[in-house]
Amino acid sequence: MKERILTGDRPTGPLHLGHLAGSLRSRVALQGEYETYVLLADIQALTDHFDRPRQVRDNVWQVALDYLAVGLDPQQATFVIQSQLPEIAELTVLYLNLVTVSHLRRNPTVKAEIAQKGYGENVPAGFFIYPVSQAADITAFGAHLVPVGADQLPMIEQTREIVRRFNSLYAPVLVEPRELLSPVSRLPGLGGQGKMSKSLGNAVFLCDPADEVRRKVMGMYTDPGHLRAADPGRVEGNPVFAYLDAFDPDQAGVAALKHHYGQGGLGDVTLKRRLVEVLDAVLTPIRERRAVFARDMGAVQDIVREGTGRGREVAAQTMRAVREAVGLDYF
Amino acid sequence: MKERILTGDRPTGPLHLGHLAGSLRSRVALQGEYETYVLLADIQALTDHFDRPRQVRDNVWQVALDYLAVGLDPQQATFVIQSQLPEIAELTVLYLNLVTVSHLRRNPTVKAEIAQKGYGENVPAGFFIYPVSQAADITAFGAHLVPVGADQLPMIEQTREIVRRFNSLYAPVLVEPRELLSPVSRLPGLGGQGKMSKSLGNAVFLCDPADEVRRKVMGMYTDPGHLRAADPGRVEGNPVFAYLDAFDPDQAGVAALKHHYGQGGLGDVTLKRRLVEVLDAVLTPIRERRAVFARDMGAVQDIVREGTGRGREVAAQTMRAVREAVGLDYF
Repeated sequence: MKERILTGDRPTGPLHLGHLAGSLRSRVALQGEYETYVLLADIQALTDHFDRPRQVRDNVWQVALDYLAVGLDPQQATFVIQSQLPEIAELTVLYLNLVTVSHLRRNPTVKAEIAQKGYGENVPAGFFIYPVSQAADITAFGAHLVPVGADQLPMIEQTREIVRRFNSLYAPVLVEPRELLSPVSRLPGLGGQGKMSKSLGNAVFLCDPADEVRRKVMGMYTDPGHLRAADPGRVEGNPVFAYLDAFDPDQAGVAALKHHYGQGGLGDVTLKRRLVEVLDAVLTPIRERRAVFARDMGAVQDIVREGTGRGREVAAQTMRAVREAVGLDYF
Repeated sequence: MKERILTGDRPTGPLHLGHLAGSLRSRVALQGEYETYVLLADIQALTDHFDRPRQVRDNVWQVALDYLAVGLDPQQATFVIQSQLPEIAELTVLYLNLVTVSHLRRNPTVKAEIAQKGYGENVPAGFFIYPVSQAADITAFGAHLVPVGADQLPMIEQTREIVRRFNSLYAPVLVEPRELLSPVSRLPGLGGQGKMSKSLGNAVFLCDPADEVRRKVMGMYTDPGHLRAADPGRVEGNPVFAYLDAFDPDQAGVAALKHHYGQGGLGDVTLKRRLVEVLDAVLTPIRERRAVFARDMGAVQDIVREGTGRGREVAAQTMRAVREAVGLDYF
């Protein structure tokens, strides 16, 4: 029997190169090997977008299009809209009893995000407890593996703690998941600072037209000390090289470019043109597939509806076992 | 159309005289006037009894028996097991986004309970957020009125805040509930200190046999300064009088007893015998009805199953409106 993977995204905007490098490509590579569930995490998106429900709803379909465009195959990967599975909410509520407020407060990922968003003590409770909600996502599907970046390891650890607590208190019905650590570290944004992110306005979207991608690349941050082509330039911290590392199939060529850039004599414009070429090769087929699917949104909705139905069956099975374990199976 | 009332209890133990004075009698009196839903709040019971799920499950049936014994009529009052309504969990998760952690931290009722239980920062998250879960209970049923004691007013206010926030952010689909303030203040425990409570071991249960009631009453705290019958005794803070106030149908007689006791000449034993008599008159019919119902637990379970089914229909209707308001009605 194949092991199960749970992945997913918060549908707050269309997906970008950071998603492609960090998770989408590996999902596509793994979908044949594992039973894959991909969560359109609208409920989690609402934890910090509760005042923009329309944005979340619209992006559920945009993200579904992105999934199909990058090559996730609905025959192999099941697309599930989180909000359509009441079981996830039920598990969240039960798991909240197994975690203390102070423990949640110490979660490094949430702590960093609360600081970044400037919430302070005014953090919405839904956002504060989202690691518990993620534990519900993962365990609802009985996922054995969860692909994550290094910064999300505390989330997996929180899930494991809840699973161990639950299984020892009630009955061993939950699967304790393992992380599948993403080999690619976070892709930097166009400005070189921080990760690529829609909300920071430093992203190349998978659905950006070719000329928009070109415009964004030609405006990228490089090495501010690299004023003339003849000068030696810095490769470290230069996002153009980070993107070439992530997407150029000719990695020997990238090594040569880095050497040349460090020595001097390689201009930013030449370098960026190479990146435009590379991204064009990556994004053109994605963009084309996206356009094809976008012509029939009814079919896309059918795919998501069908996947959500299958996902719900799995979650309902978990919930039956959980009810029995806790003794909530009265009738 | 009748207005709706939501009431209920945490099934952590059998119900006692405190419940009878504080809520059960008024529920029975109101059940004809209002459309009444009575929640067997097992999920809320788990917030501080998560390690005793068996106790919660068993007491669901004990509390249902108590309800029938005191005269709640399943034709007028609908008994609903909370855990069987996933809609309540779904609403809880959505409402958590509309409340901040610091706001929950300031809730006076929860604050007092956290202190009383000695949780400190190690409060389980499920317990910490239970006012949000109560807002979900109340609004799931579209309750117009919630009978409460004065100490629970912050809970109703929290619900109202969530309702207003939800209705203004999304669409005005939730009913803003009002409190129905209980005229009886909390009944003190047998020891005179604190309220009557199962966990404090100072309760007279509705299912206590007559000799157990007598034993408990004869051992009650009175006025420690009242050593001889001839001495004047204190009425204030004397739980025997609090019970007579709550249960003696002859309130003129109670006034006379108070006067006599204050003057001196009325012994504790005489006073307690009167209370035994009064409680016997109150509890005997309850005890008898309880025994009749207890002989056919299958019928009790049918009543609760049927009520839970009706309750779920109401909650599902609310949830449909909520999904539409937030835009979670994809298909």
